Amino acid sequence: MPNIRLVLEYDGTDFHGWQRQPHLRTVQGIVEEALGQVSGEKFNLIGSGRTDTGVHAEGQVANFLTVARHSGATWRAAVNAHLPEDIVVVHADRVAEDFHARFDATGRTYRYSVLERETRSALYRRSAWVLQGRLDLQAMRRAAAFLRKHQDFTSFAAAGAPTENRIVDLRRIEIRRDRELLTFTFEADRFLWHMVRNLVGFLAEVGRGKVPPRETAQVLEARDRRRAGPIAPAQGLCLVAVSYPAATA
Amino acid sequence: MPNIRLVLEYDGTDFHGWQRQPHLRTVQGIVEEALGQVSGEKFNLIGSGRTDTGVHAEGQVANFLTVARHSGATWRAAVNAHLPEDIVVVHADRVAEDFHARFDATGRTYRYSVLERETRSALYRRSAWVLQGRLDLQAMRRAAAFLRKHQDFTSFAAAGAPTENRIVDLRRIEIRRDRELLTFTFEADRFLWHMVRNLVGFLAEVGRGKVPPRETAQVLEARDRRRAGPIAPAQGLCLVAVSYPAATA
Repeated sequence: MPNIRLVLEYDGTDFHGWQRQPHLRTVQGIVEEALGQVSGEKFNLIGSGRTDTGVHAEGQVANFLTVARHSGATWRAAVNAHLPEDIVVVHADRVAEDFHARFDATGRTYRYSVLERETRSALYRRSAWVLQGRLDLQAMRRAAAFLRKHQDFTSFAAAGAPTENRIVDLRRIEIRRDRELLTFTFEADRFLWHMVRNLVGFLAEVGRGKVPPRETAQVLEARDRRRAGPIAPAQGLCLVAVSYPAATA
Repeated sequence: MPNIRLVLEYDGTDFHGWQRQPHLRTVQGIVEEALGQVSGEKFNLIGSGRTDTGVHAEGQVANFLTVARHSGATWRAAVNAHLPEDIVVVHADRVAEDFHARFDATGRTYRYSVLERETRSALYRRSAWVLQGRLDLQAMRRAAAFLRKHQDFTSFAAAGAPTENRIVDLRRIEIRRDRELLTFTFEADRFLWHMVRNLVGFLAEVGRGKVPPRETAQVLEARDRRRAGPIAPAQGLCLVAVSYPAATA
């Protein structure tokens, strides 16, 4: 059975997150509907992972099985014709029948955008978290150094999340400043629910001088969500890319 | 009489441009309404220049006279409390009584964003023009060199614009590429109506190889709007900054 992989870009503002839910506008729901309009099958779209309400994607990856024999380019054009303006298929290709967007993914990259300014933003209101005052970049980078590599990230997982494996290989944290825009980039094998937003909330506390960078080690060791400070809002977050072993790419 | 200068940021998507018009949602109209809610006067907001429907601003400058004795910071906070989310006062200060946002401006900077990609964009649908294929950056830069400095820009002015002085001192054209994003920056003493969008439309023709760069000189000399090709769409355009002599800044 043909297995089609999609790379999706969406503006998460007006979606109730990724996962299909009755009567709610979700990414999975809207794409499955568009697929159904292209080929009258019942589709099950598998995403690399869920994104929450308000979270964006430039490179979400998903796949679905179909009986139709269309090429990737045909799927892309046909599905886009049925998608609303806040979501688009940027790429589609046919992959091996056993390719699974979630299980096969070996890495995810997220970007979080912070605007350092005194007032709210009109142009970036959907895509950045506005913080007053300047954050201490060096302090945040020192804290980030404690977060890297295999760690138990229980302190940065959503409090209500089920107990499970909390070990994450956080391979990269990059923090850059370009005038009033601060960009945080995170790359890991996987992320726990709310983990990126909790990390940014914590790093902002460090950047404001409320938490010394060296305390990061204790916060990690505590394995307690209450130690890591507030969560950053959803609109600053964007799923940039999902990576797969070369054979499926 | 106190004269207050505002620096405004707005997302132009849902505005019918700058200029006040009955029954239409315009930037000038919405800001004058907010001013009226702060202080029950009849305000006349003077902008540095008009922006068209769909055109954005990061640094539009405007001023108004008032009898109220509020500080700039008080005006900023009070007006923002009455403005919708797609417009914000980022700065406000009291200036000399004879300061005039339009007549005193000595320079304007605009940025135009192009995305080079095969599909439309969900995330940048309000802020970029999507073009398929890659534009020739070197060819566009060669054409840009012909456009710089004092020139008669009749060929790049809106066809219906009134006859007037068409001499513009185009001080800077910068074209940069960052992956799929092409950014055009223009700085001049003033711009004619539709001039930036006409310049980008022309440069895109050059970038696509439809017009050789050296033809730019003839297009300028023709002083004929029909020679300069199509206009680029409004959503890619943003008024970045307006400059004033140091004494008023």
